[in-house]
Amino acid sequence: MLEPVLINGEWRAASDAGTFNAYDPSTAETFPETFPVSSMEDVEAALDAGHEAVRRLRDIPPTAIADFLDAFGEGLLENRDQLVASAHAETGLPAEPRLNSVELPRTADQLHQAAAAVRDRSWVTATIDTATGIRSMFRPLEKPVAVFGPNNFPFAFNSVSGGDFAAAIAAGNPVIGKAHSSHPMTTKLLTEVAYAAVQTAGLPAAMVQLIYRLDHADGAAFAGHRKLGAIGFTGGRHGGLSLKGPADAAGIPVYLEMSSVNPVFVLPGALRARGEEIAEEFYGSCTLGVGQFCTNPGLVIVPTGPDGDVFVDAAKRLFADGDPGILLGPPGHIADSVATLEGAGAEVVVGGSVVEGGGFSFANTILTAPAGAFIADPEGLQTEAFGPVSLIIRAGGIEDMVAIAGALDGNLTGSIYSDPDGADEQEYGSLEPELRPHVGRLLNDKMPTGVAVSPAMNHGGPFPSTGHPGFTAVGMPAAIHRFAALHCYDNVAEHRLPVEIRDENPNGVMYRFIDRQWTRDDVA
Amino acid sequence: MLEPVLINGEWRAASDAGTFNAYDPSTAETFPETFPVSSMEDVEAALDAGHEAVRRLRDIPPTAIADFLDAFGEGLLENRDQLVASAHAETGLPAEPRLNSVELPRTADQLHQAAAAVRDRSWVTATIDTATGIRSMFRPLEKPVAVFGPNNFPFAFNSVSGGDFAAAIAAGNPVIGKAHSSHPMTTKLLTEVAYAAVQTAGLPAAMVQLIYRLDHADGAAFAGHRKLGAIGFTGGRHGGLSLKGPADAAGIPVYLEMSSVNPVFVLPGALRARGEEIAEEFYGSCTLGVGQFCTNPGLVIVPTGPDGDVFVDAAKRLFADGDPGILLGPPGHIADSVATLEGAGAEVVVGGSVVEGGGFSFANTILTAPAGAFIADPEGLQTEAFGPVSLIIRAGGIEDMVAIAGALDGNLTGSIYSDPDGADEQEYGSLEPELRPHVGRLLNDKMPTGVAVSPAMNHGGPFPSTGHPGFTAVGMPAAIHRFAALHCYDNVAEHRLPVEIRDENPNGVMYRFIDRQWTRDDVA
Repeated sequence: MLEPVLINGEWRAASDAGTFNAYDPSTAETFPETFPVSSMEDVEAALDAGHEAVRRLRDIPPTAIADFLDAFGEGLLENRDQLVASAHAETGLPAEPRLNSVELPRTADQLHQAAAAVRDRSWVTATIDTATGIRSMFRPLEKPVAVFGPNNFPFAFNSVSGGDFAAAIAAGNPVIGKAHSSHPMTTKLLTEVAYAAVQTAGLPAAMVQLIYRLDHADGAAFAGHRKLGAIGFTGGRHGGLSLKGPADAAGIPVYLEMSSVNPVFVLPGALRARGEEIAEEFYGSCTLGVGQFCTNPGLVIVPTGPDGDVFVDAAKRLFADGDPGILLGPPGHIADSVATLEGAGAEVVVGGSVVEGGGFSFANTILTAPAGAFIADPEGLQTEAFGPVSLIIRAGGIEDMVAIAGALDGNLTGSIYSDPDGADEQEYGSLEPELRPHVGRLLNDKMPTGVAVSPAMNHGGPFPSTGHPGFTAVGMPAAIHRFAALHCYDNVAEHRLPVEIRDENPNGVMYRFIDRQWTRDDVA
Repeated sequence: MLEPVLINGEWRAASDAGTFNAYDPSTAETFPETFPVSSMEDVEAALDAGHEAVRRLRDIPPTAIADFLDAFGEGLLENRDQLVASAHAETGLPAEPRLNSVELPRTADQLHQAAAAVRDRSWVTATIDTATGIRSMFRPLEKPVAVFGPNNFPFAFNSVSGGDFAAAIAAGNPVIGKAHSSHPMTTKLLTEVAYAAVQTAGLPAAMVQLIYRLDHADGAAFAGHRKLGAIGFTGGRHGGLSLKGPADAAGIPVYLEMSSVNPVFVLPGALRARGEEIAEEFYGSCTLGVGQFCTNPGLVIVPTGPDGDVFVDAAKRLFADGDPGILLGPPGHIADSVATLEGAGAEVVVGGSVVEGGGFSFANTILTAPAGAFIADPEGLQTEAFGPVSLIIRAGGIEDMVAIAGALDGNLTGSIYSDPDGADEQEYGSLEPELRPHVGRLLNDKMPTGVAVSPAMNHGGPFPSTGHPGFTAVGMPAAIHRFAALHCYDNVAEHRLPVEIRDENPNGVMYRFIDRQWTRDDVA
């Protein structure tokens, strides 16, 4: 039996364009459930239904959207056993603590934070200029948004429960989810929970729709479709760029979170003070989720000399001794990336190869290279290996570190470890200004893999880590702005304005920018 | 003698790639001053100098940038006679009131508003989450920004004095101005005034640089250059898209303000109450600046029947009786657009042809077409004619108007005129929701050509009027965000943070978003 897609509130057979089965990554066998590849017929139907939903949404207050987000968050917890079991089976990620005690509650919390932002309404940036009679605010795109989820977070970045989904819905847009092919059943179960919440909240049927897969040409046609409002994508660079081209050509905002090696610089004083401890943090961060995090520390810059050797030796022991985990999919791409790194002048010192056996696995791997090799081929040595793999560059001094920082591509994060008693202040002062423009989030004395859902978070960064340096994919309310249009009202009578920019503050808690002051007051 | 370019503080000969002369639009003769076409050698030199400026800016407080903007604004007024004379000669726009009493003071005011935003600093959206120790703010791109100015506002949108320039500088970025070829001397004079202010304020020499022209291939190479931080462009769709392609491919944010027909809907009650008066407003708006405004009302939708006939007849008289003005350049493109409109089913009822004589001129022109023609070919009948030309569509009823609104492309503005006593409320309620998503600024009972520099302004709109529906090109502080990167600091010690996100509010007036509250207080 072929699993159904969800279009306009109906679980129905997909238009006929092929099928696929997901893998059990612990055995490399396929699951029996068969999922459909959709054709443009499904895409067109979903877009048309999304437009109908947009029309209906005009008469629905934002509180109903908040109700949906809250109900969906609660639904995740109510259905956690089934969801966790499915996600564990499809991804090989541990049920405990990762899926059940970390990722699922985090996903529910993110939906509740989005709901709170919708109720508060400050995110709309209601701006009132009483001198000119001009008022503006962010409003929905009034077109459906497509969300393409990645393989590595079956809940927190899922196309129908993750950060892009929550942000696009919070902005008031219907979402068409494109499941990741590695966990279609989990995505289907999440969509069932989401759709129940759609009904509870009284939202239009097409508020949440689901397809599983498109061939390359149809994916491009979807991305550049004039009925599409925006795209949220998390995944690899190749996939992201294949959507970016057609979306850009059609003028469709496309938010991509693509690839990053997340450089970690360890300054000399930090090494002296606690080199082995930092090596343990590095090992823990690099093997978390079997290295399949967007913020995985894939590049570590450590001084040459005895303190650096102690760090590298400790890391080598930890990587060699640690059990390799189960990967989300076949490890060939990791082997390819390691080969590319070797071709660019790096040497494998631990691991480096596929682990043969029942499931998908790759040895915990460290490569090393001298600073000169990195400066000679920064592109080659920034090749992302999406797994438990990191490249350690040995830097002769702070000048090498500064040169490496200057040669970096855009990254989501960059970390600097320094001496807790201040011995590295001068080196920090040289390095930080060179590193800062290359990363979205700068960390001190901390590995990059934790991404808190905080209003101050930036899970973003310069191209090619994302498509635009001014937006974050995580953190409410900032992430919502990606999926909104700026609407200005010039000389429009009070009763015709959206309630958010009328004289009276409609909920008393929304901050508004009135005559250049942020306030919760009514217009005087 | 060949005029020099300004690169890294030096007025020097351009790299040798050809020359051009601007036209006197009142005579169609070329001016004697010869300007250079630059090659990539100039572009590379300007980008490298811009990067050096970025390094120096790290040690310069934002108050120096505000000082520059204020000094430049004052410099415009001090040099107004020379600037106005040059702009009048090169554009044919009237010295009074347009250039001297409207556009130049407005441009100075915009620079002062940008300066005030820089001093206030609220635009950086300093966000502090005390629970997680994460803090974020918008900061400069740390790469130079290219600004391509249009032909129609030699001051207010000039590449070295206009809104994009002011916003890019206010965000802390050096600007490389690409003059519009129709007014290179005015741009050179503005750059002299700007550079004097750069020196007064103690900013790096490459804060403001100027080239005049690039051939098509070099323009594309500039737009996609990895050393470029962002692009601000105002002009035609063809030119904008020629930059958008390479910029998008390189992941460079590109803000385009391209083309718009700015639909004006006149509801039946408005026609009954003051049809002739609205016709006068329409005529004034459509011929302002000889119709060469981005917000020119190029499409007017008027009901069939006697009241509509009165409006159309009044408009025809006004357009036929009004003297055609001097255009910015040769009128061939307007004739082409009129021919395209005719080919798509419109009929010329006034004007329609080039005015022969000494200078560049095109007759004030009205075309008309029935609603059915528009619905049959909405793309053809939305062809922009950049001049004193407008297409009047006769709508059989509100259903026609709603259908026309639904078939609109993205526009900067949309206007609805309605009965002052409320007779059109029902029609307004049907039309507004269909029009709203297609326009950046919705006006009531007002023609679209005034664009106030207000914090609530949106001079932006859905593609293809601009490249992104979430940004405005006019209005401080919102316009500044286009040229900034979101920078997050995670676990970074207080003394290493930018002053804007330390515990103490550095100037006491900056609004910051601390634990989800907008406040001017220090962190508690």
